Amino acid sequence: VRIALNLKGLSHEQVAVHLTRAGGEQHREGYRSINPQGLLPALAPDGGPVLTQSMAIVEYLDERFPEPPLLPSNALDRARVRALAHTIAADVQPLQNLRVLQLLRSQHGLDQQQIGSWVRHWIATGFASVEEQLPSKALFVAGSAPGLAEVVLVPQMYNARRFGVDLSAFPNLCAIDAACRALPAFALAAPEAQADAVA
Amino acid sequence: VRIALNLKGLSHEQVAVHLTRAGGEQHREGYRSINPQGLLPALAPDGGPVLTQSMAIVEYLDERFPEPPLLPSNALDRARVRALAHTIAADVQPLQNLRVLQLLRSQHGLDQQQIGSWVRHWIATGFASVEEQLPSKALFVAGSAPGLAEVVLVPQMYNARRFGVDLSAFPNLCAIDAACRALPAFALAAPEAQADAVA
Repeated sequence: VRIALNLKGLSHEQVAVHLTRAGGEQHREGYRSINPQGLLPALAPDGGPVLTQSMAIVEYLDERFPEPPLLPSNALDRARVRALAHTIAADVQPLQNLRVLQLLRSQHGLDQQQIGSWVRHWIATGFASVEEQLPSKALFVAGSAPGLAEVVLVPQMYNARRFGVDLSAFPNLCAIDAACRALPAFALAAPEAQADAVA
Repeated sequence: VRIALNLKGLSHEQVAVHLTRAGGEQHREGYRSINPQGLLPALAPDGGPVLTQSMAIVEYLDERFPEPPLLPSNALDRARVRALAHTIAADVQPLQNLRVLQLLRSQHGLDQQQIGSWVRHWIATGFASVEEQLPSKALFVAGSAPGLAEVVLVPQMYNARRFGVDLSAFPNLCAIDAACRALPAFALAAPEAQADAVA
């Protein structure tokens, strides 16, 4: 969502919600009244109700602020980009969400090594199918600028590095990721660039 | 995807891919060449490339065949409906996908009872937040006809019953589900109505 706001050039105020401090600030009444799902992020547009779910928020931003577009104009091309984005947003990200890992640990006894193996398995599985569906040597997934797929991919690449996924099998993803991270919209949205980042 | 095709009145030919017979037909070369992710469903539009990922396919159908619309016309309303749909499509469905349950069983030793408890936990968690965000006594999530949220909700309600989720805490979801299943577009898409259904 930060990347999409930056790509659209939309000024915004960011409020940090600490996911692990004091049992997770996202579970507190204050945040639950904003997002009953207790998940991040949420966006409160000027004068509008709070929006939740990253993909729904990014689609909203693209509809409300069409330039620069995050999806191609042709319906079939849009479907292809959305499919790649959802492969990560639905089939990778939720499987390594904090609450999922917490349940695997607390309820099903997985230790840190098994958690790591679980996360790496789903990231590598999702990345393999995205890599296979990319045109080779493409600078971006569609066209000459990043869009919905990159908005979803780059944060997942960050997580992949964090969990030690071997990225050598995904040269196209690595190239797209590098091209994106060289752009201010992505660099300013990176975790380490946030005000509440821990050194 | 079947429900969306029916709501749009689009004729289509259905090819069954058996998920558990002979190790899963979705893993065979023939199907992998259609969808490298090895997941169902996939849609081959007339003259177009194969589309994958349910949400991307349904958004495509709604763009290409706008009547009847599956999303409201206002961007904020669209975002609300998409958020509810993604709460199920991203935060519930992928956690109980067959391949996820298979890995929990084979790699992490969960038995049938633990698998059931895992599935019920994530369905109930997702349903609780959707239920809380619905206007009470609404016949449908938005407006006077089913749309994207119902297309995602009804199959998940089917799964919830299959896994024995206690649905009494979700009266609005149950009412919407019942209203939908009374409509031919949903009834004809139900698993038991398919040609390859096992009696």
